[in-house]
Amino acid sequence: MTAIDLLTQQGIKPSLQRIAILDWLMEHPIHPTVEEIYAALAPSIPTLSKTTVYNTLKLFAKEGVARSLNLDEKLHFDANMMPHAHFICECCGKVQDIMILPEDFYIFPRAKGESGKDYLNIKQVEINYFGTCDLCKHQ
Amino acid sequence: MTAIDLLTQQGIKPSLQRIAILDWLMEHPIHPTVEEIYAALAPSIPTLSKTTVYNTLKLFAKEGVARSLNLDEKLHFDANMMPHAHFICECCGKVQDIMILPEDFYIFPRAKGESGKDYLNIKQVEINYFGTCDLCKHQ
Repeated sequence: MTAIDLLTQQGIKPSLQRIAILDWLMEHPIHPTVEEIYAALAPSIPTLSKTTVYNTLKLFAKEGVARSLNLDEKLHFDANMMPHAHFICECCGKVQDIMILPEDFYIFPRAKGESGKDYLNIKQVEINYFGTCDLCKHQ
Repeated sequence: MTAIDLLTQQGIKPSLQRIAILDWLMEHPIHPTVEEIYAALAPSIPTLSKTTVYNTLKLFAKEGVARSLNLDEKLHFDANMMPHAHFICECCGKVQDIMILPEDFYIFPRAKGESGKDYLNIKQVEINYFGTCDLCKHQ
């Protein structure tokens, strides 16, 4: 699905800047930060600001077009909405997608809230692994 | 186990500031940020700096005395080293511990590295759930 189709489907007005940001995010599954996306797009879109990139990504996350990831002290973004986990190499900093069996994402119904009565209303799960990647391990 | 015993056991020199920081973290399992710990301790330890709190917590995380959590755009810290997940309420911001069955932490051996040969060398797992807590849900 193209960026424009995805935006339209999720009820987001497909402005040129939104299309450019989503297009770039879909073509670069490197879990970029706001700064990285801004740096990549600013040369071709001189009117773009970091605030616009940030607000656009927050809108995408809210509307389910992309998701925000808490991998370190900066927010990262990912247009891959299929359930998957991430591995962050503490040595080179690279973020890899980790395929997870769908049933591993269904452990949350066991989680009850503080009142002990209701199950928590969970909207998103983040599973992050930290360690040394196999490329760094052999260096 | 007391803070001083834990530091000594992990081979960290138990300075007064380190003991105070770990003591406070163990007594306040609220997943605080550096700023929150600094604000709580600065009145009684005037020589304390935010940088010292940050470096001390990073040392604790490295040596397995505490762990750092990526829950939002700020690092949070937790002295509870037993395997558990976190639930972050997007409404009130509160972080709750979620007990997870130990076997749910063993999904990672399935994860292979990019070379396809080796399994990733995973040191830490973070499982974070985002949603609305049961208290906010009924408001």
